[in-house]
Amino acid sequence: MTDLINRQYYLASRPVGKPDATNVPVRDVPVADPASDEVVLRNLYISLDPAIRGWMGDDPNYIEPITLGDAVRSSVIGRVVKSNSPDYAVGDVAMSLGAWEQYTTAQAITLNKLDENMGIPLSSFMGVLGPTGLTAYFGLLDVGKPKAGETVLVSAAAGAVGSVVGQIAKMKGCRVVGMAGSDDKCRWIKDDLGFDEAINYKTCGDYEGAIRKACPEGVDVYFDNVGGDIMDSALNCLNKFARVAVCGWISTYNVPNAPGPVNLWQLVAESVTMQGFTLLDYLDRFEEGIGQLVQWLMAGEITSREEIVDGLDNVLPTFLKLFDGSNTGKLLIRIPEE
Amino acid sequence: MTDLINRQYYLASRPVGKPDATNVPVRDVPVADPASDEVVLRNLYISLDPAIRGWMGDDPNYIEPITLGDAVRSSVIGRVVKSNSPDYAVGDVAMSLGAWEQYTTAQAITLNKLDENMGIPLSSFMGVLGPTGLTAYFGLLDVGKPKAGETVLVSAAAGAVGSVVGQIAKMKGCRVVGMAGSDDKCRWIKDDLGFDEAINYKTCGDYEGAIRKACPEGVDVYFDNVGGDIMDSALNCLNKFARVAVCGWISTYNVPNAPGPVNLWQLVAESVTMQGFTLLDYLDRFEEGIGQLVQWLMAGEITSREEIVDGLDNVLPTFLKLFDGSNTGKLLIRIPEE
Repeated sequence: MTDLINRQYYLASRPVGKPDATNVPVRDVPVADPASDEVVLRNLYISLDPAIRGWMGDDPNYIEPITLGDAVRSSVIGRVVKSNSPDYAVGDVAMSLGAWEQYTTAQAITLNKLDENMGIPLSSFMGVLGPTGLTAYFGLLDVGKPKAGETVLVSAAAGAVGSVVGQIAKMKGCRVVGMAGSDDKCRWIKDDLGFDEAINYKTCGDYEGAIRKACPEGVDVYFDNVGGDIMDSALNCLNKFARVAVCGWISTYNVPNAPGPVNLWQLVAESVTMQGFTLLDYLDRFEEGIGQLVQWLMAGEITSREEIVDGLDNVLPTFLKLFDGSNTGKLLIRIPEE
Repeated sequence: MTDLINRQYYLASRPVGKPDATNVPVRDVPVADPASDEVVLRNLYISLDPAIRGWMGDDPNYIEPITLGDAVRSSVIGRVVKSNSPDYAVGDVAMSLGAWEQYTTAQAITLNKLDENMGIPLSSFMGVLGPTGLTAYFGLLDVGKPKAGETVLVSAAAGAVGSVVGQIAKMKGCRVVGMAGSDDKCRWIKDDLGFDEAINYKTCGDYEGAIRKACPEGVDVYFDNVGGDIMDSALNCLNKFARVAVCGWISTYNVPNAPGPVNLWQLVAESVTMQGFTLLDYLDRFEEGIGQLVQWLMAGEITSREEIVDGLDNVLPTFLKLFDGSNTGKLLIRIPEE
């Protein structure tokens, strides 16, 4: 037993709709000494992603749900404070599958060591160089298959995945249109990221009309992060042989019994391919993806943006920002070092 | 003006739900002499297909709707009774885009001449060697991409398309499970066509349970002709990287405001590809497809079955059999020669 106390937010009950403090309460537990080949990380960053909402449910068809009583699973970056592995020294920094907690204990073999001195902020390894950047990379290029001159429509375009999707699509010579939830976000994706058009879905009124106006030649690739009514409207704007890359449907995660898309018939009408994917489908190509993203980031071809909120105790209200569309870019909790 | 009188069933108003005689009344009109390079066919067979229901609607996103006042569009096989083309003699037999009518006038260049003496019944050219056979061929092989050892699930499996899909999938070494609407149909697809299992969807109760039982290793390819609750249940039984070939959704064609599938989330959970297609996507490969189907038919590798109803005046009630599942195989109207 060490003298470390671990503050954890854990899953006490499965939420119906938005999770609240009764579903995800806090506790303080002692941290055990690391077993052989284990290390203890003092977490610096905790990644907040829509997928976590899925893990809080009990659908066994998707990734293993979080066991009731366990801390809420998420990716973390932490500094080694105790090591029982020859591969890690105290002071090293690594990314790990962890939880909403101050300390994560993990097997050394499952960690990815990060270099603090390569001129890239650590937080980028959770954004453009992390799971969300890789999701954008594989989802757009491998599933969406955009060709130069085509129109790419992205929903949640100011989010961690969407903002990278749009920037890669621009590099591939596409007309890129993003949908986002505020004028500030729309300005950001147009002025800073180079999107051709931006639609504020909260003020545009008729989605389908707004998409048609911003995509006068129709949509060839729709990269969908939101589902629901926006997806349904986008379906009606697809060109023949369009591709729909389904990354996730955040608009439905807190809606029990969400209705299905009524315009799915467009798949037959326009010979559309709609493909779901998860990052784990591309495990054997991570090196390729990260290598390419590092190169683009260093060359200034893509911009990374993180929205960082300090303090572990803010984790639940910060997580909920994902669902009201109030964050821009990759959302992180930072636990500052003293 | 010839002395021929054309009996036609025409679209007087667009149906909501099932079309009836007020939507599709009958009239007798004179047949004009063929213009240059035109021929007049005296129709022998009229093809009845689910897609015709779509053409009766007014969705401009799909194929051109039938203009109000025009005879109901469909494929026909007819014998030339008047020709103003050097390529066709009176007595020749040809397939054409025509209508629910006794005489079809068409440009010679749009016809496909058929050989009555090659030992294949003319009706097969509307079934396994016609659009439905080709739809099965391209939809299964090009969209479904079945691999030997995989499980293929087919809905409307005793229909014109589904019955051919299942037979081709068996030739490719797959486990093939069909869903059909009567015990007779189930017996036919198992005993005569060689399906491994058949599910009577009208008596099986819980679709998902029945599919899981018939597909103990899950579904790798779902060839969907029906949509609705059966598709929704099939979505929950898909394996990782499964393919859903969407041929059509007959269960919804007569249902205004049909709800969307609520289990579409399985696309993301299992990294599924769902692809719509129409036969016209494969125009440049028709020769390949027909060549292969003729070879299989002559070799006895696939069986063609047509349900033939005599008399043009039976066209509307016969068409409606498609929607209550009471036909088996390809549905045709025959207008016997006197």
